[in-house]
Amino acid sequence: QSLRIGLIPADGIGKEVIPAAKAAILALGSDIPNPQFVDLAAGWETFTRTGVALPQETVDILRQECDCALFGSVSSPSRKVVGYSSPIVALRKELDLYANIRPVVSVLVGEKPSVDLIVVRENTECLYVKQEVQTVGEHGKEARATRLITERASRRIGQMAFELANARPRKLLTIIHKSNVLSVTDGLFRETVRSVPTLPGVNGKYDQVTISEQLVDSAVYRLFREPEIFDVLVAPNLYGDILSDAAAALVGSLGLIPSINAGDNFVMGEPVHGSAPDIEGKGIANPIASIRSAALMLRHLGYTKGADRLDTAVDQVIREGKVLTPDLKGTSTTNEVLEAVLRIL
Amino acid sequence: QSLRIGLIPADGIGKEVIPAAKAAILALGSDIPNPQFVDLAAGWETFTRTGVALPQETVDILRQECDCALFGSVSSPSRKVVGYSSPIVALRKELDLYANIRPVVSVLVGEKPSVDLIVVRENTECLYVKQEVQTVGEHGKEARATRLITERASRRIGQMAFELANARPRKLLTIIHKSNVLSVTDGLFRETVRSVPTLPGVNGKYDQVTISEQLVDSAVYRLFREPEIFDVLVAPNLYGDILSDAAAALVGSLGLIPSINAGDNFVMGEPVHGSAPDIEGKGIANPIASIRSAALMLRHLGYTKGADRLDTAVDQVIREGKVLTPDLKGTSTTNEVLEAVLRIL
Ligand SMILES: CC(C)[C@H](C(=O)O)[C@@H](O)C(=O)O
Ligand SMILES: CC(C)[C@H](C(=O)O)[C@@H](O)C(=O)O
Repeated sequence: QSLRIGLIPADGIGKEVIPAAKAAILALGSDIPNPQFVDLAAGWETFTRTGVALPQETVDILRQECDCALFGSVSSPSRKVVGYSSPIVALRKELDLYANIRPVVSVLVGEKPSVDLIVVRENTECLYVKQEVQTVGEHGKEARATRLITERASRRIGQMAFELANARPRKLLTIIHKSNVLSVTDGLFRETVRSVPTLPGVNGKYDQVTISEQLVDSAVYRLFREPEIFDVLVAPNLYGDILSDAAAALVGSLGLIPSINAGDNFVMGEPVHGSAPDIEGKGIANPIASIRSAALMLRHLGYTKGADRLDTAVDQVIREGKVLTPDLKGTSTTNEVLEAVLRIL
Repeated sequence: QSLRIGLIPADGIGKEVIPAAKAAILALGSDIPNPQFVDLAAGWETFTRTGVALPQETVDILRQECDCALFGSVSSPSRKVVGYSSPIVALRKELDLYANIRPVVSVLVGEKPSVDLIVVRENTECLYVKQEVQTVGEHGKEARATRLITERASRRIGQMAFELANARPRKLLTIIHKSNVLSVTDGLFRETVRSVPTLPGVNGKYDQVTISEQLVDSAVYRLFREPEIFDVLVAPNLYGDILSDAAAALVGSLGLIPSINAGDNFVMGEPVHGSAPDIEGKGIANPIASIRSAALMLRHLGYTKGADRLDTAVDQVIREGKVLTPDLKGTSTTNEVLEAVLRIL
C-alpha cells in the first residue's frame, strides 16, 4: 500500500513551501507508508505558458491517481485577463471539496489574546459560483453576480462543523451570516445549519454542542476584541475567506495558518497565505503553513501519529523562537526552518 | 433660517444615544442657527407596533421637511419575519444616500497601533439590493441573491473617495475588491474607481493621490497587522460594512465610531454600532459615536465650527479618561459622558 500525494505548488512562494512540506512528509518515515509524489501544474504561470490555469491533466491525475494533494498558492493577474480563472476555486469545485477547514491557534507562550478556533468555510458556492454578467443600462455598465446558497451544501458543511465542534472540549459552534440583510440566502444557511442536530440518524449526538450566531461584521469585530469567545465558526464561502484571514492576523502571521479542502473522497492541504510576490524567490517564505497543512491532511486521512509529530515539531520551533522567517520577525530562511523542524521530528 | 434635523432613534441603545447627540447639538448655541428637531419612527419596535419597519411618513417628512437626520440603531428579529426588512438599508436607498463615510481614528495617547483612516463605503447596491429568490431543486432548497455593481454607483463613490483622499495629508486611496474571484462585478468597481482621475472636468485635480488596491481578505488581515498603511479605503457595500467594523475594533470600541450616509441632497448621521440588546435600557451606552456622527453631519453641511467644537470636546473627554462608559473600561453612564462633553464645549 502507498499514499499517493499530488503536489501543485502553483505560483510564487508556493514553489518554495510545497517542497518543504514534501520533505517533512518524507521525514516521517514509516509513519506514512510509502508516500508517492506526483508533480502537477496549475496557476498563473501555467496559464501564461499554456492558456489554461488548471490543465485537465492535473484534474484527471488527481482524480484517478492520487489519494490527496498539497496546493501552494496562486498569483492573480493585476487586470482582468480573458480566459483566466482561479485554479484553486476551480479545483475545489471539480473535486467537490466542500469544506475548507482552517484552524487558527496561538502557540507562542503567553501570547495575548489567546486564540484557539477553527473556521469551517463552505467551499463550493456563495459568490464563488462565479456566475457573473455585464450589461449596459441607461446609466452605463451594470454587472451582476449570483450568490448561491443551497440547502444541500449548507447541510453538509453544517454536519462537518457540528462534528468538529463536538470533538472539541468547549463544543461551541458559531454560525456566521448576514441574515439581517440577506434574509433568504443567509436565512437558508442559518436555518439549515441549525437543523443539523434534528437530522435523521443524528440521535442526540450533538446535544452537548452550544450553538450561537454572529453577523459577519460583528464577528470580525469580536474576533479582534475577544477571540477567546470563539471555538468553531461555520460560514458561507466569502465570509469564511475573510474571517480566516482576520483570525490569522491574531496569531502572528498568515505564514502559520494551514487549511484543508475536504470532500467525501479527497482532501487537499493548502496554506492560507497567498503567493507573496514581494518575497518570491528569496527563499525566506515561511514553510510552517504548508507543513501544518500536510499535517492536517494526514490527520484527515487517519495518519494521526505522523500528523501529531509534524505539529509537535512545528510548535516547538515556534516556541523556541530561534529559527523563524522574517514574517515572524526572525532572520532564517525557508530551508533553515524546515531543517529545524526535521531535527525535532 | 433654521436647520431641520430628523431624529430616528429606532431600537435599543439608539433611544439612549440619539437624545445625547441632540443635546450636544443644542449646546452649540449660535454656531447652529435655530436647530429644529423632528422625532420620527422606524425599526423593529415600529414594525411590531405598526407592521412596517420604515413608515412612509418618516420618509416623507425626511424628504420634505428636513435638511439632515440622525439615525440610531436597529434590532433585527432573530428569525426571518415575513414583511420585515431593515429600515436603515431602505432609508439609504430611498434618500439615495450613496456614500457611507466612516472615519476611524485613534485618540488615546500612545495608542498602538495608530489608526487614522476613512472607510468610504458604497451604500446603495452590492448584495444590499436584496434581490433574493428561493426555489426547490433536485437536492432541496436553493436560494440566490443578486450582487449588483454599476458603473454609475462605482463612479460616484469613487469621486467621493478621491475628493476625501485628496484633502488629507497622505493622499492614499486603497480600492478594496475581490476581483480574483469576482472579475466582472468587482472588476467593474475597480476599473471605474481607477478611471475617476480621467473623467472630464477632473483636470489633474487628483494627480497627488496615490492609488493602491487590496483584496478584501488581505485588507482585513493588513488592517489588523499594520493599520497605519491605510488612509482612505473605498469599498463596495458589504466589504465596507465588514472593514469598518474591523477598523473599529482597533481603536477601543465600536461605541466611538461615527458615520454619515451622504447623498447629493441629504445627509444622515449614524453611529456604526448596533442596538446592543445586552445593555439596552441600562443607561450605559457610549454616546460618543452618536455625538461624533452629529459632528460629521454638521461638517458635511458646512457647519465647521460647531463640528470642530464637538470633536474637540469628545477627544478631550477620551484623552482625560476619567468619564468613560463600560465599553471603554470606564464606569460612567451615557449622561455622565454627555455632561463631560457639554462642560468642555
Ligand atoms: C486565491 C483566492 C481565490 C482564495 C479564495 O478566496 O478562496 C484565497 O483567498 C483563499 O482563501 O484560499
Ligand atoms: C444593520 C445593518 C443592516 C447595517 C449594515 O449592514 O449596513 C449595519 O451593520 C451598518 O453597518 O450600518
